[in-house]
Amino acid sequence: MDKIRVGVYGASGYAGMDLIDILRGHPAVELVFGTSNTYTGQSIAGTDLSYIPHEAAPYADTDAVFLAMPHGVSAQLAAKVAAAGVKVIDLSADLRLDTAEAYQRWYKHEHPHPELLSAPYGLPEINRAALRGANIVAAPGCYPTTTLLGLYPLLAARALAPGRPVIVDAKSGVSGAGREPKPNTHFVEVFGNLSPYNPGRAHRHVGEIEQEMAKLDPRVGMLIFTPHLLPVDRGLMASIYVELDEGHNAADAQDLYAECYENEPLVNVLPAGQQATLRHVVRNNTCAISLTPVDDRFLHITSVTDNLRKGASGQAVQCFNLMFDLPETTGLL
Amino acid sequence: MDKIRVGVYGASGYAGMDLIDILRGHPAVELVFGTSNTYTGQSIAGTDLSYIPHEAAPYADTDAVFLAMPHGVSAQLAAKVAAAGVKVIDLSADLRLDTAEAYQRWYKHEHPHPELLSAPYGLPEINRAALRGANIVAAPGCYPTTTLLGLYPLLAARALAPGRPVIVDAKSGVSGAGREPKPNTHFVEVFGNLSPYNPGRAHRHVGEIEQEMAKLDPRVGMLIFTPHLLPVDRGLMASIYVELDEGHNAADAQDLYAECYENEPLVNVLPAGQQATLRHVVRNNTCAISLTPVDDRFLHITSVTDNLRKGASGQAVQCFNLMFDLPETTGLL
Amino acid sequence: MDKIRVGVYGASGYAGMDLIDILRGHPAVELVFGTSNTYTGQSIAGTDLSYIPHEAAPYADTDAVFLAMPHGVSAQLAAKVAAAGVKVIDLSADLRLDTAEAYQRWYKHEHPHPELLSAPYGLPEINRAALRGANIVAAPGCYPTTTLLGLYPLLAARALAPGRPVIVDAKSGVSGAGREPKPNTHFVEVFGNLSPYNPGRAHRHVGEIEQEMAKLDPRVGMLIFTPHLLPVDRGLMASIYVELDEGHNAADAQDLYAECYENEPLVNVLPAGQQATLRHVVRNNTCAISLTPVDDRFLHITSVTDNLRKGASGQAVQCFNLMFDLPETTGLL
Amino acid sequence: MDKIRVGVYGASGYAGMDLIDILRGHPAVELVFGTSNTYTGQSIAGTDLSYIPHEAAPYADTDAVFLAMPHGVSAQLAAKVAAAGVKVIDLSADLRLDTAEAYQRWYKHEHPHPELLSAPYGLPEINRAALRGANIVAAPGCYPTTTLLGLYPLLAARALAPGRPVIVDAKSGVSGAGREPKPNTHFVEVFGNLSPYNPGRAHRHVGEIEQEMAKLDPRVGMLIFTPHLLPVDRGLMASIYVELDEGHNAADAQDLYAECYENEPLVNVLPAGQQATLRHVVRNNTCAISLTPVDDRFLHITSVTDNLRKGASGQAVQCFNLMFDLPETTGLL
Repeated sequence: MDKIRVGVYGASGYAGMDLIDILRGHPAVELVFGTSNTYTGQSIAGTDLSYIPHEAAPYADTDAVFLAMPHGVSAQLAAKVAAAGVKVIDLSADLRLDTAEAYQRWYKHEHPHPELLSAPYGLPEINRAALRGANIVAAPGCYPTTTLLGLYPLLAARALAPGRPVIVDAKSGVSGAGREPKPNTHFVEVFGNLSPYNPGRAHRHVGEIEQEMAKLDPRVGMLIFTPHLLPVDRGLMASIYVELDEGHNAADAQDLYAECYENEPLVNVLPAGQQATLRHVVRNNTCAISLTPVDDRFLHITSVTDNLRKGASGQAVQCFNLMFDLPETTGLL
Repeated sequence: MDKIRVGVYGASGYAGMDLIDILRGHPAVELVFGTSNTYTGQSIAGTDLSYIPHEAAPYADTDAVFLAMPHGVSAQLAAKVAAAGVKVIDLSADLRLDTAEAYQRWYKHEHPHPELLSAPYGLPEINRAALRGANIVAAPGCYPTTTLLGLYPLLAARALAPGRPVIVDAKSGVSGAGREPKPNTHFVEVFGNLSPYNPGRAHRHVGEIEQEMAKLDPRVGMLIFTPHLLPVDRGLMASIYVELDEGHNAADAQDLYAECYENEPLVNVLPAGQQATLRHVVRNNTCAISLTPVDDRFLHITSVTDNLRKGASGQAVQCFNLMFDLPETTGLL
Repeated sequence: MDKIRVGVYGASGYAGMDLIDILRGHPAVELVFGTSNTYTGQSIAGTDLSYIPHEAAPYADTDAVFLAMPHGVSAQLAAKVAAAGVKVIDLSADLRLDTAEAYQRWYKHEHPHPELLSAPYGLPEINRAALRGANIVAAPGCYPTTTLLGLYPLLAARALAPGRPVIVDAKSGVSGAGREPKPNTHFVEVFGNLSPYNPGRAHRHVGEIEQEMAKLDPRVGMLIFTPHLLPVDRGLMASIYVELDEGHNAADAQDLYAECYENEPLVNVLPAGQQATLRHVVRNNTCAISLTPVDDRFLHITSVTDNLRKGASGQAVQCFNLMFDLPETTGLL
Repeated sequence: MDKIRVGVYGASGYAGMDLIDILRGHPAVELVFGTSNTYTGQSIAGTDLSYIPHEAAPYADTDAVFLAMPHGVSAQLAAKVAAAGVKVIDLSADLRLDTAEAYQRWYKHEHPHPELLSAPYGLPEINRAALRGANIVAAPGCYPTTTLLGLYPLLAARALAPGRPVIVDAKSGVSGAGREPKPNTHFVEVFGNLSPYNPGRAHRHVGEIEQEMAKLDPRVGMLIFTPHLLPVDRGLMASIYVELDEGHNAADAQDLYAECYENEPLVNVLPAGQQATLRHVVRNNTCAISLTPVDDRFLHITSVTDNLRKGASGQAVQCFNLMFDLPETTGLL
């Protein structure tokens, strides 16, 4: 069988490096290029390739490209690459929101290619049908993935109390802040510390999460979302607190989740009484979820992913597999 | 002036070591003994003393003793020491609950000295009057201190929506689990990890926190409380999510807290827009609090302490100062 | 092809867990059992098996067993298992020393089965011929592996100044101290700290390293060896300082090493000017080496491994592959 | 008594922040200003001051200034400030080397003020007499301080084998690399890692250490020096390996060191058999030293400091105290 020829834009960032790591072990993939303006000329670990500048990438000579680029830039690349008939998996936020207005609101600049906003949202467990055979996919970020998988069975069952807020206290490893050195990612600032940032409703992912929640259950209340910078390199935990609607009981959540994710190879619902920890997911491509009924009405959910895997590169490859009609977990287990 | 003669039971545990560290710099204190059955004979860092066995402690020859001992044991020591006319500051949970029934419920064994349960609760910012001149004080633990200080202005103002749950997502450094080696405190298990434990309403401190909340506002709803083990040595964060009652607005919280704690030297309300982090409190004796109004009705509060300082030994010394009519921050700034 | 039936004694320790992880991905292996007296009945991660007690292991029903057990115990198991015609790879120190006297000196008790001391030393890059088809192999520990691979080309070339000491300043991640909780592996004791232990010539591995050095070059001087406990979970660095004999020049070391390890897939000699770091080896099965000529005569070598991989389980599987005439890196790349 | 008016240039760097922290508790000091071009206008923690630009500092209105500035810049400030009759403690490398030639060799640019190179070297335990009443002092860096204190008794006793190299394997916390974000200080790069850098004789501190060693014993051999970046925020360990001259015995080192440092309040020689760890010195102003005789002739020494305290700011204040005829440990215990 001919291999699928694949390129990666932004291959030297943390998500890009994990993407390379997955793709070089993927049996159906031939890795054609990896770009990095910062590390041009250096060899790409685990491959025979060297980083090339973004501008020099022979995208037209591939079947698919992954974009692990900053928002704003990414949409422009997506448009150019797609125009050449190449499939695109975009890991940036550029194609995730449904309208140019929403994008403008959260990202503070005009969307360069609103026509691309029809790309399906790349969360296979929720949106699988739209991803099969798709040409462009908007792969969701780490916070939305972890939060939405933690809530999906309740949203699908319309089990949440209408109008009541969904509270998510989230904690992310430092790789989520990117590879470029910044004061807040300096080792000395993070070591022994724990810091909230963009609390309440200030984080850009709030828009994306609320959009997807509302598609599943339009009656859902607002998201209260506080991310924290955790002194670990990778791993993300969403601690979710919800109130259930009448007619639903927190004690039933365990069965609801077990059933909902029964056939999902990349979502692991822990047995009742066990708690999901970062250790369950770091360096693998799964999401782990544990459930704690507080009383009949209130439920606490812990959902964890590796922010660079199921929260980024692993999920992007899962989408890629669907786009090319490959078994969905190829290269991921 | 004659110095106050002081002894410390359990001086080799993490709280005990910090207590020694504070007391040896306290200008009104003469440290008389520190006990440790495990480290008997070894020198006590920063002092001229060596650890002696609990049984050998000359408590009758002191003016006050601190008990940094396991629950169950501590109440028996408290009774014995108090009977000799010596003041007692108990850092264990033994004297914190108001009734023998509550103690039985949370600690699963009969209280050995129910008559001691009348000891005042040693949270000076909330209960100062009862502590001045007291003979026995029940110093609260790290989770209750951090949570109650984070909620106190709202509770005192009766600003919380009656019957609505108070959600506390808490994170603690590993010293909170004690110095005895256990599988869950092994370096390899904690490094790079984050783990919830005793979630929902299972943690023993739930009883203590709800008891004190109800004293301030009997209409308050239940506590939903999930602690996490954080890969740092010390520091504790309580991330608190509350709903306000009608007639109150989250936007007013900043002023409410600033006013309430205006004259408190050991509580630091951060300016609006700043977030409390572990860095604000590690190795000092303060609590730092930041406030984020989510909308009119929902408020997010971050309250942090050093679990071994304001969450244990620092607060115990603050109580001690009140019991002996010393300036409250002596030895603490 | 029929798979090789394999059992693991001590499968719940840190080396044992990594061994399971490698073996479950090994294409020629069928994993038959994993023992653990502490975790009996719990499932073995990534497999369909549960831990069974050591005594219950059906070793006679396997083709090979790995022993990841404490010294003293391991030799007795090795004797029992080998008597049943099953191949043995022993990860303990029990079979590494060549004489019962040396064992008595370093381990302070009599060797239970001196007849097993003829087992070849399982460092394939140095001792490959003796391992092919062998029935019992003594797999070396993490410090000896990392040190000996760092010195081998010099020893083989008789390039070291006779009688001059070899200085090794070593640093090991905490998993090297085992999974059982002890005061020195408590998170709070290790976090933010760095501690030498068993300095000079006190560490048990000194005997093993000197024995193997002397086989390669009997003129070599004594080993000065100071290990340190490093605040990381895994990874080991041996920082080696040596003096060269006349007729040798430190500037030639780069070529010497490159040539010596040219065909070794699991030893990575870094280009001149680059430095070996833990990042090069953590979670893979290789050793990385960098060389710094100080002047003509003095050479500094940095050799790194993952103490649980090339320093333990990875190397044990490399030996296993040789014992069964499989390609040497099967399951390891 | 009138307080000594003091200013700090570079008060927002890691050494500068610790300096502020010490000076604000120093009973003889009135802190007049702290400069920072990056943080101009922000308040200086623990003081009533705000950072001002370097150019705006009223140095002429002080009795002494500390310079915690980059090399190159620092000498020019020192010249300007000294010309106004103000005492200067320079924490940079600019005044440490004795000749303009040595400076040119190690720092690759011409020295701007060679006339300042006569400033005494600010290591009080070795050079106390020259510091009393001095107007300008060159405070040594963290590696030289820790290494030289670890060697001083042997050098003073002429106990080292002439011409034999002194081997120093050093490990430093990340604050030693400065506060400016750089790729090698990114949390993700340091976490779980250990990296040598500038090995052999490449590090700039080699020149400074060899200069000072030779003053104490001109027969001493070259320094072989390999620093490593350690995944902790602060703390520095110099692991020193030396060969003794005939007529000296490693077994005598314990007494030699104990006697040499007997009256030094800021150097702590540990009892035989104990090992110096970072924990002994982090956040205090002392150096701790432990000794391990390997055999008669070879000695291993572990010397540790907090790189920001005895390795920088603490030592600078110790010099300041000597310059103003204050008790040497004022503000430091």
